[in-house]
Amino acid sequence: VTPAALAAFRAVLGPAGILTEPADVAPFLRDFRGLYTGRSPLVARPDTVEQVQSLMRLATEYRTAIVPQGGNTSYCGAATPDASGTQIVVSLSRLKRIRAVDAAGFAITVDAGCTLSAVQAAAAGALRLFPLTLGSQDSCQIGGNLSTNAGGTAVLRYGMMRDLVLGLEVVLPDGRRMDQLSGLRKDNTGYELKQLFIGAEGTLGVITGACLKLYAAPAEYATALCALSGLGAAVELLGRLRASFGELVSAFEYIPAAAYALVARHLPEFVPPFAAASPAYALVELGLPSAARALADDFAALLAAEIDAGRLADAALASSLGQRQAFWFLREHIPDAQRRAGASLKHDISLPVAALPTFVAEARQRLKLLAPCGELVAYGHVGDGNLHFNLSPAAAGDDAALLALEAPIKRLVHDLVAAHGGSISAEHGIGRLKVAELERYEDPVALELMRRIKGALDPLGIMNPGKVLRGGDS
Amino acid sequence: VTPAALAAFRAVLGPAGILTEPADVAPFLRDFRGLYTGRSPLVARPDTVEQVQSLMRLATEYRTAIVPQGGNTSYCGAATPDASGTQIVVSLSRLKRIRAVDAAGFAITVDAGCTLSAVQAAAAGALRLFPLTLGSQDSCQIGGNLSTNAGGTAVLRYGMMRDLVLGLEVVLPDGRRMDQLSGLRKDNTGYELKQLFIGAEGTLGVITGACLKLYAAPAEYATALCALSGLGAAVELLGRLRASFGELVSAFEYIPAAAYALVARHLPEFVPPFAAASPAYALVELGLPSAARALADDFAALLAAEIDAGRLADAALASSLGQRQAFWFLREHIPDAQRRAGASLKHDISLPVAALPTFVAEARQRLKLLAPCGELVAYGHVGDGNLHFNLSPAAAGDDAALLALEAPIKRLVHDLVAAHGGSISAEHGIGRLKVAELERYEDPVALELMRRIKGALDPLGIMNPGKVLRGGDS
Repeated sequence: VTPAALAAFRAVLGPAGILTEPADVAPFLRDFRGLYTGRSPLVARPDTVEQVQSLMRLATEYRTAIVPQGGNTSYCGAATPDASGTQIVVSLSRLKRIRAVDAAGFAITVDAGCTLSAVQAAAAGALRLFPLTLGSQDSCQIGGNLSTNAGGTAVLRYGMMRDLVLGLEVVLPDGRRMDQLSGLRKDNTGYELKQLFIGAEGTLGVITGACLKLYAAPAEYATALCALSGLGAAVELLGRLRASFGELVSAFEYIPAAAYALVARHLPEFVPPFAAASPAYALVELGLPSAARALADDFAALLAAEIDAGRLADAALASSLGQRQAFWFLREHIPDAQRRAGASLKHDISLPVAALPTFVAEARQRLKLLAPCGELVAYGHVGDGNLHFNLSPAAAGDDAALLALEAPIKRLVHDLVAAHGGSISAEHGIGRLKVAELERYEDPVALELMRRIKGALDPLGIMNPGKVLRGGDS
Repeated sequence: VTPAALAAFRAVLGPAGILTEPADVAPFLRDFRGLYTGRSPLVARPDTVEQVQSLMRLATEYRTAIVPQGGNTSYCGAATPDASGTQIVVSLSRLKRIRAVDAAGFAITVDAGCTLSAVQAAAAGALRLFPLTLGSQDSCQIGGNLSTNAGGTAVLRYGMMRDLVLGLEVVLPDGRRMDQLSGLRKDNTGYELKQLFIGAEGTLGVITGACLKLYAAPAEYATALCALSGLGAAVELLGRLRASFGELVSAFEYIPAAAYALVARHLPEFVPPFAAASPAYALVELGLPSAARALADDFAALLAAEIDAGRLADAALASSLGQRQAFWFLREHIPDAQRRAGASLKHDISLPVAALPTFVAEARQRLKLLAPCGELVAYGHVGDGNLHFNLSPAAAGDDAALLALEAPIKRLVHDLVAAHGGSISAEHGIGRLKVAELERYEDPVALELMRRIKGALDPLGIMNPGKVLRGGDS
């Protein structure tokens, strides 16, 4: 980045729109998991969409690489610059207006820099639900949720972030603004462009705004923590719940004993609701519209029948909002507990739901041989076939041994996932972490199409180079 | 198409895979609405995906333009060749295997040439629901539903065709096969390619197979035909239904008196359920999971309360499957009745739901001045903001006068739609019919991106040229 370019960026953004002091810049250079630390001569903090456009026009003029960043909570390093010191981080955090809430049209239009919880709150204020739910929702931003196609715990009923988008506003690498912000439910006018930018992790353009779907807020939630014999029993319970309640089942989260124990050990606020330990647990929730409130009783009856039939060891039904929050506290603090337990190896995988029990049993057996120093903590969104297939140290002091096996463990897990027709990145994306893995496992025809699209939309290669697709000569 | 090319296509497809007799070829050259009749030296009828690949390799070698065709029921001429006689129609109708039904995983994998009703039946056989519902479902094909991103009467709850797709198999213009057929619910590995081919109307590749989402089949439907004062009352009723029943509301179809009268006049099988005429009607349906069967009573109670409050003139609840079918007969035969009533002008538009009543009132007033020879028949998917904004002759003998006003009427309607932030093609696509309209109303930045993508994926311009985007030098 030449002094002339720096001066030009400074002129466009103004003093409030630019950070250059090392202490100010530092938090933007390190990813959430601490996997990567990059360098950057400046962090741009545009305040308006027009500033993003001016900035991108300059980036094109000076051939400057741009790294868009939201709340910097992603797991694959997509928002961190490389070590060259030539890439400029663009933080969207000052673009944080709720532009419009359309309760009658079940839609909300927001700036990309709004936090997820700010959008949830704006929706709730209009008696609507924005369903995306993530552990990091107080700090992650809508632009990042869009760019990584975020998932979370409400996917079973409402879909991924890309399913929640009605319209999108994107600043292209050359500074032009693509306006596809209309909130229309149906619009078959030409190619579906917005889905190309969603999940592209900032490699095709800068998302600056979005129109998102809202839903009728459920009048009541029926929430239960179930104790069961394992993953097979969980998959079967999910099937019976769906047969009875259809899409009213809004969450089904699997929590193995290992994850339960980690939270109980490291987060003293958590009070285990069961006296006896169980091999596994499932956090199940129905979201009930007002006329269907009475179905909470049917839910309780179904669970009681499951216990009577011996298919469920026990079930605790939340009888208050506080209890519901306590159950969700357990689920949401698994990553936190894992962090406190020391080193961890994470694999964000998905498989056909029916293949999950076999896959986990097989992987567990092989991992026992390869890495006795690791304890498997495979939890998460069973209803979507998505497990966070993580390992923590088996005992205190096993951290180094576990980390030393990172590469062979990853190969074992990903090869087995591929053999079962699964995905090596269910909801966290590719970023910088999984570029080589994508090359290894993706259909080569699809991969070549992705490169062609990258070339067509970002011919100078200035958008977040090296993320998703290998940079340089590509 | 040179004799050498013809011989090569013949060799690859075999005698059963090719039609050249004028009488055999003719049905493939004329679109469903009779707007276009083209020419083609042959119709290719590949039997396997490999044959589609061979065919596309030849098309690339000989620079032959390809026009993919499904059930030939589209409304915008996307599947009809032009008059040059140089374009080859590729009918997918022999690719009609149900490849796999995964009841536990709520997914079905099918060939592109399966009819929609064949897919619905295969799903039902596994006690699952494939929700897409269209008037033409016995003849339209999944490949066409995908290529046009079909809508229909279940969009309110389940979304458009693109929302129902888990995986896609596409043969590219150069004959390579892109395999993205996995049925995973969550898969964040790189750019979202499949959504680019969905809705592209065969201009980027040939869709040969798809993995589609299934749902738990509702155990019961609660269906009512409501008589009300007009569109405003309909939008309000929809709001109250959603507040009570959330996403259990699976259809909300608006039927103005004009459409009701057309069906009553031209389809004697239809027995009007109400003694008195009403300015408008709404066909409302809830799909209830087994545990929620009792909500049918709450639905009846809500409608009774609406009548008591004077917000609804009357409501007929279907008390049998036969009655439910009779109500749907009314809705589904509106296009048929319009055809029997003579000439018609169709506009497939969408608007923000809240803007519908004002838009229709304003358009009606202006049309009365411009085209007194036309009667407005604006019906359809109010819940999605999508109206089929059609005109029929006001009186017998008005056909010619109405058709003579086609261009100015279209301009009036589309300009007014654009002014209200709507879309000029909600669910029927662009095809050949609306290429100039797309150029007129689409964001120019988006339009230029579409052209770049077309250039990147189909550099020789052999895929369905002249559809969606202008052909020739583009």
